[in-house]
Parts: sequence; structure tokens; C-alpha cells
Amino acid sequence: MSEILSELGKVLEDRKDADPGSSYVASLYSKGPESILKKIGEEATELVIAGKSGNKGDILHETADLWFHTLILLSYSGLGPDAVLDELKGRFGTSGLEEKSNRSNEINK
Amino acid sequence: MSEILSELGKVLEDRKDADPGSSYVASLYSKGPESILKKIGEEATELVIAGKSGNKGDILHETADLWFHTLILLSYSGLGPDAVLDELKGRFGTSGLEEKSNRSNEINK
Amino acid sequence: MSEILSELGKVLEDRKDADPGSSYVASLYSKGPESILKKIGEEATELVIAGKSGNKGDILHETADLWFHTLILLSYSGLGPDAVLDELKGRFGTSGLEEKSNRSNEINK
Amino acid sequence: MSEILSELGKVLEDRKDADPGSSYVASLYSKGPESILKKIGEEATELVIAGKSGNKGDILHETADLWFHTLILLSYSGLGPDAVLDELKGRFGTSGLEEKSNRSNEINK
Repeated sequence: MSEILSELGKVLEDRKDADPGSSYVASLYSKGPESILKKIGEEATELVIAGKSGNKGDILHETADLWFHTLILLSYSGLGPDAVLDELKGRFGTSGLEEKSNRSNEINK
Repeated sequence: MSEILSELGKVLEDRKDADPGSSYVASLYSKGPESILKKIGEEATELVIAGKSGNKGDILHETADLWFHTLILLSYSGLGPDAVLDELKGRFGTSGLEEKSNRSNEINK
Repeated sequence: MSEILSELGKVLEDRKDADPGSSYVASLYSKGPESILKKIGEEATELVIAGKSGNKGDILHETADLWFHTLILLSYSGLGPDAVLDELKGRFGTSGLEEKSNRSNEINK
Repeated sequence: MSEILSELGKVLEDRKDADPGSSYVASLYSKGPESILKKIGEEATELVIAGKSGNKGDILHETADLWFHTLILLSYSGLGPDAVLDELKGRFGTSGLEEKSNRSNEINK
């Protein structure tokens, strides 16, 4: 199922050449990176509110919104979802649970 | 490559039964949802800072941190990455680019 | 000059009885607390972006926006600016610099 | 009561010459602006969580934390609380309620 991320990555790349008036994503690209970053801040806030409410549907919906806008930032930055998955794999995927446990401490800066 | 999300989802499920002192994730679970939400806010802020700097390595690293902590929230909430991928697929994946463009407007609340 | 905070606090109290269509603040009150919290998240993100850019005018403008929306949350919650000033005074204002230094560590949770 | 903001502004200015190890604020200054911006993002998130919970004591405490860290950013940026109060006064303070209502729309970008 997760090929949806790669598909979305490709759609977002295509949007770079689109008319700013033709789609929401093309409009964000044309407004520049700050408009994308503001949306990430907004969606993160909405996810925090959803998480505090404990409503599963809201948590799901807001996580999807947040991931979607991080995908836009990745694409804007010349990156894609595979680079993030690779990064996560490098941190967690190549070893047993115990080592993963140790490595996860790196995140807790 | 993206099966890493499902793998990570399973590791995070396993952590629910772990001793809070045994791993970073188990520690977050034991502190309760607010500790997870605070980390999501922190990581989103760090991604905004990275995005404003334009440093690709930082953007990649902070996106991975943010996704990782949203996966923890999903797991804590009885959800998993497949539910988010399904949600994204439902919004963007079943139709041509033109329809995707229209649907993406729904996100721009 | 700082009586402006108290004045603003009073204006915000008055807005509670206003028609939702009559002003921006009355509209936020009527939409409920989540709409105020979303604005706080938005304005905090915009301040982070301004701070990263280092533009003094933007930092000033976004700080004013953020304070304004926290005043709305305070008013919505039956609090006012004096309570916050009192809290800050309790932490920092009653003692010499050295003690303030020690007390400020409490903030660094 | 609100002279506490000016007093705090002066204390924060003094901290600029202090040894980074001598106080929390001096430590933040020495780490650079991103450490201050991260704290603003953190404290904003904690205020959103407090606001969602509706706990008045938490809302008060987290607002004070957030204002305190914005004061640190102001000081780091060569600004102070009076500039923010002046900005708020310019927007809201010089006119009657009706005009304030109109002007407040400017904030709703």
C-alpha cells in the first residue's frame, strides 16, 4: 500500500510546472517556502489538538494532512518520500529490537 | 522500500509492553499522550527552522524525526501507518491528476 | 505604556457579548477554543520563521500577533493579562538578579 | 503592574554579558537564535495543550512561559517589550471600540 507515498511524490513533482492557479499545491509552490512552512506549523498544531482530544478519526485526518504538507516541502526542496523512508530505515530497520532501542535514543536530543 | 513504515509500526506496538526504562519510545508511552504531543510540536518547529534555512540534510533529518513521532502517536492511539497511507490513497491515489488537483483543495480548509 | 495590555484585556472582555459577525475576536470566540488555539499555533510558527530570518520588523509584528492571540485565549478562559504579569513578577520580579537566575532554571523543564 | 515587562526586558539585556554557564537565559543566548526559537515552538505547543485541556492554571503558566521566551527573542534581536506594546497600541489603543473592531481584521490575514 505504501507505494502511495512514491506516487504522491511524483504528482507533487509534476505540480512544479503547473500554473499557480491550477491547483492548491502549485499555488503553495508559487508563494514560496514560507507558505509551505506555515501550513506545516498549522497542521502540526491541529494534530496536537486532535491528539489531546483523543479522537481517532481526527488524529488520522490531521496526520495525513501533516504528512501531505511535509511531502510538499520535500518536493520543493528537491527531496522525496524515499529519502525519508531511507533515513528511517537507516535508523531503525537494519537491526534487532535491542539495537533499535539504543538508536532511538539519538532522537531524544 | 516503504515497508519500513509497517515494520516501524510493529516495533512501536511491541514497545507498548516494554519497561518504561528500556527504551525512548516506552518512556514516552508511559509519560502519556501529552509527552508525545510535545515532541510533535518540537519536531515540527525544528522542521520549520530547517525549512527556513533551506539545508536539505536538516530538512530530511527533521522530517524523519517528525514522521517518527507521529508514528508513535498513531500507535499510542491504536492506529498505524497503513491507516494514514490509506487516507492519503483515498484522497489522491484513485484518480487521474486532474481529479487529484480538485480533491487537494479539500485540504486547504 | 504597558496599560495597553489591560485596555486590550477589557476590549476583549467586551467582545464576548458581541455579535460573531461584528468583529474578528467575536468570531473567534463563537467558533470555540480550538479556533483560538489554531491561531496561536499559526502565529507561533510565523514568529519562528521571522526569528529565523532575523528581520526585526517581522519579529516585532509576529510577536504582537502572538501576544494578541494569547490575550484572546486568556479572556476566553476567564483570565487576563494582569494574571500573566503577576505570574512573571512572582518568578522574576521580587528579588535580585542572582535569585532570578536561579529561579529561571525552573522554566527549563 | 505591567512595569514587570520593562524590568524583565532590562534583566534580559544584562544577561547578554553574562557567562553562558551562569543562567538559563545566558545559556540560550550563547547557543544562538535557533535554541530560542525551538523554546518558543515548545512553549506554544504546551499552551495549545493547556488550552485544549481548559485548565486555567496551566493556561496561565504556559502563557507566562511563552511570553518569557518571546521576551528573550526580542532582547536577542535588539528589541524589547515596549516595542511590542507600542505595536499593539498602534493597532488597538488610539481609537474607540468600533474602529478597533475594524482594525482587528487586519490581523486575520
